[in-house]
Amino acid sequence: MMSGRLLGLGVGPGDPELITLKALRLLQAAPVVGYFVAKAKHNAGQGGNAFGIIEQHLRAEQQRLPLVYPVTTEKLAPPLDYETLISDFYDTAAAQVAAHLDAGRDVAVICEGDPFFYGSYMYLHDRLATRYPCEVVPGVCSMLGSAAVLGVPLVYRNQSLSVLSGVLPEDELKRRLADADAAVVMKLGRNFDKVRRVLRELGRDGGAHYVERATMREQRIVALDEVDPMASPYFSMIVIPGARWQG
Amino acid sequence: MMSGRLLGLGVGPGDPELITLKALRLLQAAPVVGYFVAKAKHNAGQGGNAFGIIEQHLRAEQQRLPLVYPVTTEKLAPPLDYETLISDFYDTAAAQVAAHLDAGRDVAVICEGDPFFYGSYMYLHDRLATRYPCEVVPGVCSMLGSAAVLGVPLVYRNQSLSVLSGVLPEDELKRRLADADAAVVMKLGRNFDKVRRVLRELGRDGGAHYVERATMREQRIVALDEVDPMASPYFSMIVIPGARWQG
Ligand SMILES: C[S@@+](CC[C@H](N)C(=O)[O-])C[C@H]1O[C@@H](n2cnc3c(N)ncnc32)[C@H](O)[C@@H]1O
Ligand SMILES: C[S@@+](CC[C@H](N)C(=O)[O-])C[C@H]1O[C@@H](n2cnc3c(N)ncnc32)[C@H](O)[C@@H]1O
Repeated sequence: MMSGRLLGLGVGPGDPELITLKALRLLQAAPVVGYFVAKAKHNAGQGGNAFGIIEQHLRAEQQRLPLVYPVTTEKLAPPLDYETLISDFYDTAAAQVAAHLDAGRDVAVICEGDPFFYGSYMYLHDRLATRYPCEVVPGVCSMLGSAAVLGVPLVYRNQSLSVLSGVLPEDELKRRLADADAAVVMKLGRNFDKVRRVLRELGRDGGAHYVERATMREQRIVALDEVDPMASPYFSMIVIPGARWQG
Repeated sequence: MMSGRLLGLGVGPGDPELITLKALRLLQAAPVVGYFVAKAKHNAGQGGNAFGIIEQHLRAEQQRLPLVYPVTTEKLAPPLDYETLISDFYDTAAAQVAAHLDAGRDVAVICEGDPFFYGSYMYLHDRLATRYPCEVVPGVCSMLGSAAVLGVPLVYRNQSLSVLSGVLPEDELKRRLADADAAVVMKLGRNFDKVRRVLRELGRDGGAHYVERATMREQRIVALDEVDPMASPYFSMIVIPGARWQG
């Protein structure tokens, strides 16, 4: 029997209309739809962020395959550690997907934004793409969704763009931001205060834009100075556009 | 009278199916469709790259507004220079678009990839967005289209991603690539040989992937060593993925 295809489908940054025609076509044709979801959400009968974006397009007969993250906030007793826990989880998730592929069923794994841009899909891809036929459909990433709703052209001509994680140590963030023409800082949340401090020290806070949940219904654009560092959500981003070229 | 809206629509990296539902909806509703096009192409009755991607979706009654680039390859006699010539061109293009907006007609300007990611639309936006209502619809950028067809996850967890132009001087390219976890080099063409040399010097050529016209019918994936530096087209890219995280 022929095995099924693994499909990694970018569904865009939040607005359900920001899915591509191709991702929608492959999604609707797939017998199985896989998605990552936090345990608490799953237990509450919900489907995770990417699932919420595309739920309206699914038919009842398409099988849902939730890939439920383990709870990682509690302190782990040695020899357990985060890396092992999460690696085991992705092994299990890959096995769940592979069972359908082996049975000849295509599995569409939906990904917020783009699958290969910091997406969890990458960990399935790394485990399965050498063993099964596979297609990845790129999506609109949150960086470009954020720039669009902020109305700021991101990067001009021959400028360099640095995409950074707010999790980085303060000195590395500072070094990289100091050298960037244009930059984007993702994964804010608890890192927000550190990132803003660095931008202030570099005198780049004036040109920095902040957005929460870009393109989603709950989207919120706030001046950097007015953000409450304790309330910055995971789905937020700082965008520092390159200097405008007069051309 | 109410003025029309300026719409900057990302149409994706080449495959017509990689347009979003939203860009397609706004495109089809727009009375005027603006697009940038090289003079030679225009004279040959063609519509430019972005136009080719969406042409099939247009109705006959939608007005086409070609924004025709001046020829900039010939040597300019002083006081003429490239910067002035191109700046004057964007002034003229903005005036052409503004005439429709003033007459109350929405103008959809189509953009290859994403409008704010090195797109020419930015120069219209900078001239018009403060004077007219404006909406930008993000698109799938060529960087993520390229990673998808290459099948390489681009950037993991807290890695930094550097987006660079092949036009940069060799020493700056080298410095920036040496410091990048993951990187993408755009605008190859005549710069290809220089970029490959730098990657070889840094010992990063082994992990680098090359693609021409990603997601287009004429897409071509070649090993970096096999690329003919004299034949690398403008629509090509080098993708250097971040080190795989085992997670
Ligand atoms: C694990 S990454 C996933 C990125 C996703 N694959 C993409 O292509 O955009 C999660 C980070 O993306 C950013 N993000 C995702 N969606 C967002 C949105 N709608 N608005 C602002 N930031 C967002 C946040 O910085 C968040 O911490
Ligand atoms: C002026 S930039 C425009 C980028 C576009 N706005 C985007 O979002 O992708 C042109 C450069 O994008 C890259 N590019 C655009 N389309 C491409 C494609 N289909 N395949 C490979 N590279 C592409 C090339 O490096 C080219 O030199």
